[in-house]
Amino acid sequence: MDKIDAIVSKIKPLDAKVMEQAQKKLDFLTKPQGSLGRLEGLAKQISGIIGALPKHIKNKVVFTFAADHGVTEEGVSAYPCEVTAQMVYNFLAGGAGINVLARHVGARVIVADLGVKSKIEDQKSKLKIKKIGPGTKNMVKGPAMTESEAVKSIEAGVEIFEEELAKGLDIAATGEMGIGNTTAASAIAAVIIGGDIAAVCGRGTGVDDQGLNRKVSAINKAIALNKPDKNNALDVLAKVGGFEIGALAGVILAAAAHKKPIVIDGFISGSAALIAFGIEPKCRDYMIAGHVGIEPGHGIILEHLGLKPLLNLDLRLGEGTGAALAIGIIEAAVKILNEMATFESAGVSEKNA
Amino acid sequence: MDKIDAIVSKIKPLDAKVMEQAQKKLDFLTKPQGSLGRLEGLAKQISGIIGALPKHIKNKVVFTFAADHGVTEEGVSAYPCEVTAQMVYNFLAGGAGINVLARHVGARVIVADLGVKSKIEDQKSKLKIKKIGPGTKNMVKGPAMTESEAVKSIEAGVEIFEEELAKGLDIAATGEMGIGNTTAASAIAAVIIGGDIAAVCGRGTGVDDQGLNRKVSAINKAIALNKPDKNNALDVLAKVGGFEIGALAGVILAAAAHKKPIVIDGFISGSAALIAFGIEPKCRDYMIAGHVGIEPGHGIILEHLGLKPLLNLDLRLGEGTGAALAIGIIEAAVKILNEMATFESAGVSEKNA
Repeated sequence: MDKIDAIVSKIKPLDAKVMEQAQKKLDFLTKPQGSLGRLEGLAKQISGIIGALPKHIKNKVVFTFAADHGVTEEGVSAYPCEVTAQMVYNFLAGGAGINVLARHVGARVIVADLGVKSKIEDQKSKLKIKKIGPGTKNMVKGPAMTESEAVKSIEAGVEIFEEELAKGLDIAATGEMGIGNTTAASAIAAVIIGGDIAAVCGRGTGVDDQGLNRKVSAINKAIALNKPDKNNALDVLAKVGGFEIGALAGVILAAAAHKKPIVIDGFISGSAALIAFGIEPKCRDYMIAGHVGIEPGHGIILEHLGLKPLLNLDLRLGEGTGAALAIGIIEAAVKILNEMATFESAGVSEKNA
Repeated sequence: MDKIDAIVSKIKPLDAKVMEQAQKKLDFLTKPQGSLGRLEGLAKQISGIIGALPKHIKNKVVFTFAADHGVTEEGVSAYPCEVTAQMVYNFLAGGAGINVLARHVGARVIVADLGVKSKIEDQKSKLKIKKIGPGTKNMVKGPAMTESEAVKSIEAGVEIFEEELAKGLDIAATGEMGIGNTTAASAIAAVIIGGDIAAVCGRGTGVDDQGLNRKVSAINKAIALNKPDKNNALDVLAKVGGFEIGALAGVILAAAAHKKPIVIDGFISGSAALIAFGIEPKCRDYMIAGHVGIEPGHGIILEHLGLKPLLNLDLRLGEGTGAALAIGIIEAAVKILNEMATFESAGVSEKNA
């Protein structure tokens, strides 16, 4: 817990003065003021986050965290839980969606095992192994994890972030893989945001009507049994969360503490953002919502966090795919700030008085 | 007119068989079917457009066309009309928004003068000079151009497209610069789509309330005086259009004829798409709406064309900026089709039966 406290205590508000400087710089560029819309907002936000006008976004890191979920016993997923491990191998081999999109934007993908059920054989040691356990327990029968495991999962995320920070990191993004993890994410959203449980339950990677009913019912049972305290994010994570979700919350807190922008991917990443926000609301200003997907709870989470998604491309893959695409847009915003001519340098007349 | 007829006669429907092949390929990749949403739709559309599964998108061309507008006499713009020429110099020097964003996605910007009022001195011959006239006439006092000029402007766009096609072109995008051209675009949308003129009139690059009133009033007068025939796109272009708009319509028709995807940028590009669609509706399937901006008529045009924008970033700069950003997403879609592992190759289990 000391490690989390230490990270959280470092999170400060954005630098308003630098954001003003960024705005001024944007207003002198050869375009009507504000005409680059959200690109200008991003350039300003990044300035406030890093406490300086950014020169470039070079080192981009997508954190794709994997873990298994005991709740799959309840038949909440369309895929067998072996797929979590199989997809980790796919990530390591570079053949998954996130590998393709991360390469496209020049990002490196950091794959970590936070609690995959089986042992992953990784001869090239590309995988970060930070297993908290062999998957969570079935939340319908008791807490998904102990409080100590919840703490460890967040700390693991902080550690992984800091390892990559040491190698160079200008922007980070969250991503995940875990058969059953939309059920955990829905449960987290249901507890923290409240309202109708079915409203934050979607088909995940494609369950049918019956699967969806099993999912809603499992979450109902898990909440009734475990009684997570909505005002205690660590308790919510322990009772209905997942190891990869906790670790992503750790990445988000660490990014904010180290003044780096953190791009939130899909619905499950959003549930990690809810946990991080519950621990320290100030981390919110360091987040950029990469996209809003078609999982119905995703938009509800973003609204709760007060984040407006950058992209809306009907994605529902996770892994960090939407966040990776968003990194391309964010890098463009920083280039606008740096590479455009000013009215003066280009000899362009300004607006009529 | 023969040249336009010749191009139009080459426009065929998309290749449905190849689109099916693309869908099949997408369904074998290591992701739940359809989970990459619009990226999958783009990969499929590009396949149908080029009549083959695309291997890559390498040669990307943004056509940024400039011209002046006689209607600026009516006080419809917040900027003096000299800015059109000044911005052309900025494009040629590489300092404008479109230059930055095109570089970001690896596209080349082709700047053409279709009718800038003053003579542009271009010692490095980077500018394509296809001046139809020194700006259009004031549409409030008569037709913006003759029918012969309208034909010539479209033909100029076809020519410029074909020159670049010869150099290598996998995807094209539209862009423009012309002080006063949101008034022409609004007038085109008002005539072709119908409905309330004020609904398709926005503040362009930033006019105030009075400027907006002058704009609506100018369009009203121009339509009443010139009586453009909404069912004759060439007549609409001649009476209330612009030279750069006609040339962009030519680019769109030429792209469709040569089986290349064409990314439509903002509101003014959208009005060019309306003209092209009016000439040959089949060209619509070759279009990708790069984004929807905050100019109110933009969404109305896209709806009329049945196009769903890729991005929504509150842009209102034009030049091709939104289309350039969209090219980055479209290229990602093609990489997904080519670079992802299949369930079989990666040894990943498929969905439970």
